[in-house]
Amino acid sequence: MTVTGMLSAIERIGRDPKSGGYYRPVMSTAELDLRTWFIGEAEARGLDVDTDRNGIIWAWWGAPRAGSVVTGSHLDSVPGGGAFDGPLGVAAALAAVDVLREREVQPARSLAIAVFPEEEGSRFGLACLGSRLLTGKITADHARALTDREGDTLADVFARGGIDPRRIGRDDEALGRIGRFIELHIEQGRGLIDLNEPIAIASSVLGHGRWRVRVTGQGNHAGTTLMRDRSDPVVAAAAMVGAVSALTREVDDARATVGRFEPFPGGTNVIASAVDFWLDARHLDDATTRALVARIAAACEEIAAAHGCAVTVSEESWSPTVDFDAGVARELGAALPSAPLLGTGAGHDAGILSEFVPSGMLFTRNPSGISHSPEEHAEDADANHSAVALADALQGMLR
Amino acid sequence: MTVTGMLSAIERIGRDPKSGGYYRPVMSTAELDLRTWFIGEAEARGLDVDTDRNGIIWAWWGAPRAGSVVTGSHLDSVPGGGAFDGPLGVAAALAAVDVLREREVQPARSLAIAVFPEEEGSRFGLACLGSRLLTGKITADHARALTDREGDTLADVFARGGIDPRRIGRDDEALGRIGRFIELHIEQGRGLIDLNEPIAIASSVLGHGRWRVRVTGQGNHAGTTLMRDRSDPVVAAAAMVGAVSALTREVDDARATVGRFEPFPGGTNVIASAVDFWLDARHLDDATTRALVARIAAACEEIAAAHGCAVTVSEESWSPTVDFDAGVARELGAALPSAPLLGTGAGHDAGILSEFVPSGMLFTRNPSGISHSPEEHAEDADANHSAVALADALQGMLR
Repeated sequence: MTVTGMLSAIERIGRDPKSGGYYRPVMSTAELDLRTWFIGEAEARGLDVDTDRNGIIWAWWGAPRAGSVVTGSHLDSVPGGGAFDGPLGVAAALAAVDVLREREVQPARSLAIAVFPEEEGSRFGLACLGSRLLTGKITADHARALTDREGDTLADVFARGGIDPRRIGRDDEALGRIGRFIELHIEQGRGLIDLNEPIAIASSVLGHGRWRVRVTGQGNHAGTTLMRDRSDPVVAAAAMVGAVSALTREVDDARATVGRFEPFPGGTNVIASAVDFWLDARHLDDATTRALVARIAAACEEIAAAHGCAVTVSEESWSPTVDFDAGVARELGAALPSAPLLGTGAGHDAGILSEFVPSGMLFTRNPSGISHSPEEHAEDADANHSAVALADALQGMLR
Repeated sequence: MTVTGMLSAIERIGRDPKSGGYYRPVMSTAELDLRTWFIGEAEARGLDVDTDRNGIIWAWWGAPRAGSVVTGSHLDSVPGGGAFDGPLGVAAALAAVDVLREREVQPARSLAIAVFPEEEGSRFGLACLGSRLLTGKITADHARALTDREGDTLADVFARGGIDPRRIGRDDEALGRIGRFIELHIEQGRGLIDLNEPIAIASSVLGHGRWRVRVTGQGNHAGTTLMRDRSDPVVAAAAMVGAVSALTREVDDARATVGRFEPFPGGTNVIASAVDFWLDARHLDDATTRALVARIAAACEEIAAAHGCAVTVSEESWSPTVDFDAGVARELGAALPSAPLLGTGAGHDAGILSEFVPSGMLFTRNPSGISHSPEEHAEDADANHSAVALADALQGMLR
């Protein structure tokens, strides 16, 4: 089946009919439906499917063993996301198996398709959670205690999704089987539009982190409290958001974003007592990111003081810049000679895995240049070509 | 029973044990529990209880008839509210009946205690909804179509709470029975602290309104989108919040607040595509409020344009300044000669009713000066004295 045919089969799952955006948080009905769909597609191809103790699904062509070639991506999404971020890599992997079989390739190594849970961190706040658990980049205790917006712990949510939370954590056996990891992903920028190419090879992933900023002031009545008597954390936090944008624009190629902003208690006629907002900051040079966040934190302190408020800035996650394995990039370049090298500002499971196993990525052209939005797109021809390009890349590695 | 005794009996209902704040939105389990509690207290006093077709509870001492004296308040709360805003007036009314009976008052007029639903507008965005329905200040069609944050209509929510939504709307019969309406309420400012008095008589309610501001930009990926390529509505909306505060500080005695701010879709690693925030603006002079909101709207337009975003400002409610009935204020002054006159910045059902029937209010000292917050407070002596003061005021009116 074509990549576009597979994506059509799941196009209604987790889609908001009003905005057209997808929301498929890990272990939600939508994401569980997608897992079921994937297992069906894999079994229809005669692959041996196993969901491991971290909730990663593995579909094997050949026996699981050391030196295997692994490809795949994720099925969860951000709120209001697009149709391709994650599922394109999963569908391309399934279709690449079809291509290799049509070519009558007899792999000398085993091939697995892996589907990672909570790549986006939309539910528990920590991106690439599945690959972090697999590699031990996060401890099982830390992961189990993460909570979603409803206050449910990861332990509870995983248990309801059929994953025993007592058994999550670093998995040397699963990790030891990965000889190469290749993730195909929709491009999340305009690189391939500008270069007029359908496929790129990843050079690096920008270092990035998340910080939670809590601003506390004095809750009060919106009608009875004079402006001069206020310590309004919404006004202070709004000034901080302005500082995030202004300070980041002073640093070449830095990106910083506030996409989540929550006044407490959030009543229209209530001066809030506190605001939580989240800062996402990224730069190719990790020291530059650190310095920028330090400047932002200092500005937040000043702004809080000027508004009679207090502020704390706490790190929720940090991923240094990853340069993908040069050998893997050479192999990908040999299979796809016209594909340019591109860096990316987005985090990926391949970025986490690359610290442990030779890893690489392919990007598929996105004519909108937009991602994490319903406008994210891939032309049918490019989506279907992704499977051929991925098959070309895998074929050499399977020898 | 004392006022403080009654408030103790309900102190756990709808309380967040972490913050200590109350959330008792209309027709929630908490508010329905409070309604049941009120009906029990009223029936224990031999009052005849009737819930009318707008969900207003009436507890009658004497037959319902024209020229009756009505007192009461509300039991719903803002999110994160205090224990006194609403329930103090209801408990004081019940205790005032006890005081009048101890004094062996034989009322020449009937007395009713009224409990109004959705005074805060926390669920459906429109404050004083019960009194607006009673008086026809809002049409039944408009009210039925209001939605809460879950997208449920008022019609559905009222139906689940046992109120037939087809029968809501202006009720001339109920309104025609009110000869006087007196609402006792916790003070929501520092007036009585400064004056060192336990009780005040209301002179006026500041005109106030709510506007919804929708800022739309371009949703995108937080990691891959360069700062210069962004049209980020969170950054634009944050600048608008700053403008709200700055422009309002330029106008003597004006108050404007943003307490609710919602980026969409709200993901940490997502540049939002839109933000909704709500503006609450108030001033004693209605033209000044209107002019301030017009200046804020113009500033929002400029800010949106500078950020590559668009903005719409739409009015959700508007209540002009209310001067309470001078005759009622004189009657209250005669009964409570040491009580000062105080204006209030907060809206109240008494403010809506005063357009239709002679109305007045009493305020009880709040030693924190803070309201819509767990820090809202009344000393036990003041809370219990409220019932005596209210009884003193009602006694003359019942002759």
